[in-house]
Amino acid sequence: MTGGARTGLICVEVPDDSLFGPENLPYGVFAPPAGEPRVGVRLSDTVLDLAALLDDPIFLRADLNALLAAGPTRWREVRDQVRELAGTALPVDAQFPLSTVRMKLPVRIGDYVDFYASVDHATNLGRLFRPDSEPLLPNWRHLPVGYHGRAGTVVVSGTPVIRPNGQRRTGSDAPDFGPSQRLDIEAELGFVVGQGSTLGVPVTVDEFSEHVFGVGLVNDWSARDIQAWEYQPLGPFLGKSFTTSLAAWITPLDALANARVPLPTQTPKPLPYLRGSDDHGLDIDLTVRWNDEVVAHPPYGRMYWSPAQMLAHLTANGASVRPGDLYASGTISGPDPDQRGSFIELTWGGTEPVTVGTETRTFLADGDRVTITATAPGTAGRRIGLGEVGGTILPAR
Amino acid sequence: MTGGARTGLICVEVPDDSLFGPENLPYGVFAPPAGEPRVGVRLSDTVLDLAALLDDPIFLRADLNALLAAGPTRWREVRDQVRELAGTALPVDAQFPLSTVRMKLPVRIGDYVDFYASVDHATNLGRLFRPDSEPLLPNWRHLPVGYHGRAGTVVVSGTPVIRPNGQRRTGSDAPDFGPSQRLDIEAELGFVVGQGSTLGVPVTVDEFSEHVFGVGLVNDWSARDIQAWEYQPLGPFLGKSFTTSLAAWITPLDALANARVPLPTQTPKPLPYLRGSDDHGLDIDLTVRWNDEVVAHPPYGRMYWSPAQMLAHLTANGASVRPGDLYASGTISGPDPDQRGSFIELTWGGTEPVTVGTETRTFLADGDRVTITATAPGTAGRRIGLGEVGGTILPAR
Repeated sequence: MTGGARTGLICVEVPDDSLFGPENLPYGVFAPPAGEPRVGVRLSDTVLDLAALLDDPIFLRADLNALLAAGPTRWREVRDQVRELAGTALPVDAQFPLSTVRMKLPVRIGDYVDFYASVDHATNLGRLFRPDSEPLLPNWRHLPVGYHGRAGTVVVSGTPVIRPNGQRRTGSDAPDFGPSQRLDIEAELGFVVGQGSTLGVPVTVDEFSEHVFGVGLVNDWSARDIQAWEYQPLGPFLGKSFTTSLAAWITPLDALANARVPLPTQTPKPLPYLRGSDDHGLDIDLTVRWNDEVVAHPPYGRMYWSPAQMLAHLTANGASVRPGDLYASGTISGPDPDQRGSFIELTWGGTEPVTVGTETRTFLADGDRVTITATAPGTAGRRIGLGEVGGTILPAR
Repeated sequence: MTGGARTGLICVEVPDDSLFGPENLPYGVFAPPAGEPRVGVRLSDTVLDLAALLDDPIFLRADLNALLAAGPTRWREVRDQVRELAGTALPVDAQFPLSTVRMKLPVRIGDYVDFYASVDHATNLGRLFRPDSEPLLPNWRHLPVGYHGRAGTVVVSGTPVIRPNGQRRTGSDAPDFGPSQRLDIEAELGFVVGQGSTLGVPVTVDEFSEHVFGVGLVNDWSARDIQAWEYQPLGPFLGKSFTTSLAAWITPLDALANARVPLPTQTPKPLPYLRGSDDHGLDIDLTVRWNDEVVAHPPYGRMYWSPAQMLAHLTANGASVRPGDLYASGTISGPDPDQRGSFIELTWGGTEPVTVGTETRTFLADGDRVTITATAPGTAGRRIGLGEVGGTILPAR
């Protein structure tokens, strides 16, 4: 072998307080220093090369889609195999330090749907966008409101975000065109569809874990000035479609067994198609950092609509899902000011600037970095980490 | 050769008044009586097997995407080759009578965007959905309003349409869940993106024909009762996402050179990013048949926003397009009652039933068939046809 032999067997070192220990094991797609992108699992700060460790061509691909399509029985087999391997000495050439690989977008996304499942976020946005009306519209407590976003502009965490240009209108003047002045984030949790469904056949609440593979953090970057001008009557479009960031690591649902929590009380009681035994929340705590300063702690456990209800609603009309579809929760906000997952809420429409390092901010400035991380309960008091989603703002072209 | 020899050369018979003569030559994907789906061109009532006639693996595929990605220079080369072949005797085994093949969805669709580009349709819908307000919202004449639809539920013409279930609310009562009672059509023209673009770099109006390959008829089936209850504030979702039908045949833009017409006057003048030299309308006349009865003649030539403006707007914020993306015009309606491209307009919200055969209708009944066809000017007074888009309503599950 040329270029330095990488042979022998060693164990991956996993500190006891690692957020990425053997009960987590998220999946991603990585490009090693030499070679094609392929599927890996994160263990502590090491990437395990599944194509090298497990004899299955579904891992020799630049996306998780073949694994996703393989279905829940195969997902559990693979997870069991990886858990077993994680405790043993493994071939050196099947391990890569995380710092030496480039992470790719983990999923070839079919359709991307974004929901609006936080009652605190929807209430805050209603107050800001429609100050003269009831903040929650009449449908909000009856169904998980959602819409389709742009799948082709979902990028992996770390990809720079170019400030979008667009039409904005201030006051009653004619609109002009230029760089968004109200560039914002939305801290969300995304759900990656594994096994697809059949056109015409809804996925029930109870079938959630047969169809959803795992979760990844999402930042649904939003240009509020563009959005406010364009969004009636057909919803957000260019205010959202310029870039959406997805974490490089997708945590399988099975790793979140200890994070299951009851939903907050839903009043009125949802219609029967939105009820079922798999109808739970997830006790995931997010942290939002703006230029390394922690500015918010959005609590996923407070979300009004469950992930299973969102999927049941999405398919209730017979719409099918495909392996690789992504649906996100919408901005995660809690009732407290420091639990708000968007800056339009955090700064109350830009009227209450926040201190970020030595500067004050309302919306994002060029060069700003935003990083969202999250943890969830594991076993024995340990916590497991979700892969981060981050990006830096580049000036408009 | 077993099973009946298919050898020799013959010419395709093309009646002089054929809507699918040698100046049309639309592309589709067909499954021959035996063999895998592949790319074909329609000449009169014959499908030419491009994989057999032209030595290029981009035609040995179950979608047009490789041809789309090849870009405009290759599109013109292929079209020139096919035009030349169309006038000569061709191998019998590279020709299939249209009635013997099964047509497939021609494009693997990335993102699907639906616009709202008819001023008459937007005005009618505004009156029906928001009777107490100005029908056109303030943004409508400043930008082509649009939103993302569901790409994964776009089906090829002829696929049955299952009546969707969903939440509807009548009056001020709590909503219930059940089969849509106001199932409708939207007669539209769809634009198939060929060459993709780069994230962050808008496609200008002048670059339209470098990026758009061709057009196909679209029926954006719509459940008006579901839509009316769900659509605020994030736009239509389940009222549309159950099924969208696309014609099997995609007519290349080059076949529509004689259909180019000036746009209606746009007031106010669009912002500079929505102007350019490729900013034209298309003189395409649609016909809507409801159970074989002609009920409307929507005129595409009256659309307010041009296809090039829609693409320039879609990408103005830096959003990229991919080969196989589809964007549609929104319902095509003209100012006259018999030019309305949806039944909610044709029956004025269901208050003015129409006669269909021996029955009266407001919205679609189970078993109803809708077929949309269209023609455009060719050379020397001839007309060229667009492939039809049709479907039959099956009862809700």
